[in-house]
Amino acid sequence: MVNSDNKPVVAFQGKRGAYSEQACRERLPNHFFMPCNAFEDVFTAVDNNSADLGMVPVENSMAGVVTDSYDLLALHHLTIVGEHYLRVRHSLLGPPDSHLDDIASVYSHPQALAQCHSFIKKHGWKRISVYDTAGAAADLAEDLHPNSAAIASELCAELYGLKVLAKDIHDSSLNTTRFLIIKKEGSPLVDDTPCKTSLLFEVRDIPAALYKCLGGFATNNVNLTRLESRPVLGKPWTYHFYLDFQGRTDEHRCELALDELSYFTEYLKVLGCYPESKKPTETEASPR
Amino acid sequence: MVNSDNKPVVAFQGKRGAYSEQACRERLPNHFFMPCNAFEDVFTAVDNNSADLGMVPVENSMAGVVTDSYDLLALHHLTIVGEHYLRVRHSLLGPPDSHLDDIASVYSHPQALAQCHSFIKKHGWKRISVYDTAGAAADLAEDLHPNSAAIASELCAELYGLKVLAKDIHDSSLNTTRFLIIKKEGSPLVDDTPCKTSLLFEVRDIPAALYKCLGGFATNNVNLTRLESRPVLGKPWTYHFYLDFQGRTDEHRCELALDELSYFTEYLKVLGCYPESKKPTETEASPR
Repeated sequence: MVNSDNKPVVAFQGKRGAYSEQACRERLPNHFFMPCNAFEDVFTAVDNNSADLGMVPVENSMAGVVTDSYDLLALHHLTIVGEHYLRVRHSLLGPPDSHLDDIASVYSHPQALAQCHSFIKKHGWKRISVYDTAGAAADLAEDLHPNSAAIASELCAELYGLKVLAKDIHDSSLNTTRFLIIKKEGSPLVDDTPCKTSLLFEVRDIPAALYKCLGGFATNNVNLTRLESRPVLGKPWTYHFYLDFQGRTDEHRCELALDELSYFTEYLKVLGCYPESKKPTETEASPR
Repeated sequence: MVNSDNKPVVAFQGKRGAYSEQACRERLPNHFFMPCNAFEDVFTAVDNNSADLGMVPVENSMAGVVTDSYDLLALHHLTIVGEHYLRVRHSLLGPPDSHLDDIASVYSHPQALAQCHSFIKKHGWKRISVYDTAGAAADLAEDLHPNSAAIASELCAELYGLKVLAKDIHDSSLNTTRFLIIKKEGSPLVDDTPCKTSLLFEVRDIPAALYKCLGGFATNNVNLTRLESRPVLGKPWTYHFYLDFQGRTDEHRCELALDELSYFTEYLKVLGCYPESKKPTETEASPR
């Protein structure tokens, strides 16, 4: 499926200017970016071919897991074909003719407000929680109240005609979100690219089940990069686990680990095997 | 510290009528309920003695972990002295003279809207996401728009003078939230009450670290009920783990497991040892 520009389509959750759109622009620049209301809509768009790819956040270095994305990975039969790390850089946006000294109230998602705590506190502004960062910018662009500002991406300033009153106002320059790129069918593995593999499994109802599940990775020298538990929908207080490891499904040591794991699990699904991306390091972080 | 009624004070996050207040009313009926803006404020209130106890949600059977609470447990030096399971029962609230047929838009937290998906869909109402359920009720009580309704607790109807248009409108009657009761200092363990213990630890930077950390529990027959990983603040992509097990810190098998664990951890903290509470079961669930 292509849009009028004949570009492949990548779906993301949020309003125009959301950090997810920024991730798309960085990683998939020659695509058409399709905003979706809910995470569910991103998965459905990929499922029913109205988008070629989806870009979904799964984890933030400061706030942790994005639970909606993980749950939808369990429900939909899509494949993870890549990952991308986006450095989150918050800007303070105001109406076109506003000045920093005029601001009295700041609107944004509670997480963004928390991540800019020092900057807001220094100015003594009132903090007002809204549903998302790009939405705060969009609302401000409609309302244009001279004493209000929004915390959002710089991209939002461009898209909504707002003025950037301050850049990089976050407390920590290490704030990074990990995105997964999802597709209807997986891409073949190329050469011997270093890969990551993502799994979903539910442990069998046996003593020390999780310990036993991890044994095959420990003894076959497969390094785990992530283990996340989530409730199983419709089965309260039953958990399944999302596990990422460094390795390819076609490597012998990984095959051994997966084989051993399957013995201790109720079900086991490989969500994808995809090239590993580099995390932004502290030295690459922008100056404050 | 006591209020004018001479009752001990329990702090909770949210507006009056929030599900956290309902948990307080169920578990600590003879207390004074103190609403706080943010989770942080609940911990601070207990820390600086303006509240005797705090009631904080840590996990929901459908939505999973409440990350803010876990992060604050790591930052504050408080003790977990109890747990409580609250069955979440959503009601549809309207202005006092409204009728079900007048409703066109429903306001609530996105999670509550999702949990009442079938009911809302059947009526074809517009769903509008707001920051919290009790806030949706409070806003409706001010505005009293005849075509608007809020999804919140029945308690909110009483507190804000709204009309209950429909009860138990959630899709699943198994929706339960687990709360922890926090206190400045722990209470002594009584007799041989069955207890749970909550831990926080960071693994050492060694191969198969998590697998090794779980070994002592597996070999000493200590049953884990929860394992949750969270990013360490200020150390991106480093995780610490919250672990709950069934057992008391003064039992020999648990001492052995904790001793073995401490060998493989960078740090290890017992967050509390407290009487285990019963989960509501399916049979106790209310009829639809």
